[in-house]
Amino acid sequence: MTTSTALLLADLAGVAVFAASGASAAVAKRLDLFGVVFVGFVAALGGGIVRDLVIDEVPPLAFADWRYAVTAAVTAAAVFWLHPQYARLRTTVLVLDAAGLGLFTVTGTLKALDARVPAVGACLIGMLTAIGGGLGRDLLTAEIPIVLRREIYAMAALAGSVAVAALDAHGHANAAWLTAAAAFVFAVRLVSLRRRWSAPVPALHPPRPGP
Amino acid sequence: MTTSTALLLADLAGVAVFAASGASAAVAKRLDLFGVVFVGFVAALGGGIVRDLVIDEVPPLAFADWRYAVTAAVTAAAVFWLHPQYARLRTTVLVLDAAGLGLFTVTGTLKALDARVPAVGACLIGMLTAIGGGLGRDLLTAEIPIVLRREIYAMAALAGSVAVAALDAHGHANAAWLTAAAAFVFAVRLVSLRRRWSAPVPALHPPRPGP
Amino acid sequence: MTTSTALLLADLAGVAVFAASGASAAVAKRLDLFGVVFVGFVAALGGGIVRDLVIDEVPPLAFADWRYAVTAAVTAAAVFWLHPQYARLRTTVLVLDAAGLGLFTVTGTLKALDARVPAVGACLIGMLTAIGGGLGRDLLTAEIPIVLRREIYAMAALAGSVAVAALDAHGHANAAWLTAAAAFVFAVRLVSLRRRWSAPVPALHPPRPGP
Repeated sequence: MTTSTALLLADLAGVAVFAASGASAAVAKRLDLFGVVFVGFVAALGGGIVRDLVIDEVPPLAFADWRYAVTAAVTAAAVFWLHPQYARLRTTVLVLDAAGLGLFTVTGTLKALDARVPAVGACLIGMLTAIGGGLGRDLLTAEIPIVLRREIYAMAALAGSVAVAALDAHGHANAAWLTAAAAFVFAVRLVSLRRRWSAPVPALHPPRPGP
Repeated sequence: MTTSTALLLADLAGVAVFAASGASAAVAKRLDLFGVVFVGFVAALGGGIVRDLVIDEVPPLAFADWRYAVTAAVTAAAVFWLHPQYARLRTTVLVLDAAGLGLFTVTGTLKALDARVPAVGACLIGMLTAIGGGLGRDLLTAEIPIVLRREIYAMAALAGSVAVAALDAHGHANAAWLTAAAAFVFAVRLVSLRRRWSAPVPALHPPRPGP
Repeated sequence: MTTSTALLLADLAGVAVFAASGASAAVAKRLDLFGVVFVGFVAALGGGIVRDLVIDEVPPLAFADWRYAVTAAVTAAAVFWLHPQYARLRTTVLVLDAAGLGLFTVTGTLKALDARVPAVGACLIGMLTAIGGGLGRDLLTAEIPIVLRREIYAMAALAGSVAVAALDAHGHANAAWLTAAAAFVFAVRLVSLRRRWSAPVPALHPPRPGP
């Protein structure tokens, strides 16, 4: 298998796990078949579409390469029919989702840097690529996006995109280091899930009486 | 009347009916005059704006040709003042909305194909052009998008866009066949409304006990 | 201080006040630190990102110039930690928000005209630049956008953008007149807040019995 085939397969695996997470949320809201596929499509490809619009890569990959849309649609439809089985795969899906998070962070940041976006902007775009689909999924199902509420999720992606930008700035953006960056995001996400780490929430009471 | 005048008039008619549907939803939520006009604008032009961004046709037609914005705004404002009368026109509006769905599906798919988007992507863009405004309307009024929940709506648009892509691939994308494709979407939508067809929803109970 | 430095500082001040309004809404929903910063970022920069996508100025300024993202993030994080104090600054924030509204209206409309968008479209884009961030903030926190429901807010921005387009059409788009246009939006917004002006809402009962 060549490197680019490996990358494509990894990318499509990320699309599939995010599509499964979107479809699962849509099934829970009792959307119809079309709704489940559509939310799966948005969860899998929404982040990448925004990334491509922002870096002027048009038409976005989700529309330019049919394998992306078909992977998302087939996965979401499978969840629609198999959802009781899917629920039993909860842990597997969380692990795959963490893998997708790591992968999309790295590819999103790299694509932005390649499009000559400065480092701070490229990190933001990389993070948005990774979390954008989940944001779209939650907006479509009328939830406050969970990524804004709980757990170390976007933070892991942001740390990973900063690592990628740093590697790129020092000329180390090769396969080994980039894989390490994706693995880092993956590990941070899994450990924080396991240990129930979360970002601080606002204090309920004023922390001090003030002047 | 020339063909291009006919096309423009048909397009503006689609804008008007979608603006009326958006304004009507906004009136039901008791938004103010600006809110009603804004939701009408998004419902009428949101799908086309996304289409134009994705195919890099900038600025989008909604901003480049003042007749689109003015048609949407005037229609929405009329609904604001006339809404009791509008409620009585419910059936008329559903029929016009189905006509708009057919028209926007055909024009959206064609524009994507013209911009050299591959067929699968062009079908998705055509469908999004037709359903995107309704999605925006429901997001702005804090509803789970109805297009994701009930009835044959997006499915009709998707079938129509596949038909347009097939016609285009075989060199039959002429006025007669394209009109037939729009009429097909229109008919599927109306028949499914009449017969209360809907897409399958997830089974409430697990369909089988599993292994 | 040169004119362009003054403009940049004014722009960043607008970013800061909008970030504070977004962060404040996120704190009220008890989002975590990341959520507060993210909603602040969207409130401050969302309108400008949409503007830049629509006029094909990519990557959008929010990603191309790190000072914008950093200003938004630092302000939002400050609100997260200082929110009891921030609550006491309510009036100050409303005044600053009105100033941001005026400024973003003028710069948004000008940028659209510079990108050769026709006048009607440029007015819409200018208004969207000014209100877009608040829309995003409310969508992310699962509220019907307040800009659609109450008070003279978007109307003030629209009036300001029409003024800018008129000045531009007559060759008067110089610093003095543009400042006057921003001040006009600012004043309309403050006076309507003070006097509790609001746009009309739909009549609860049908205004006339009909034919």
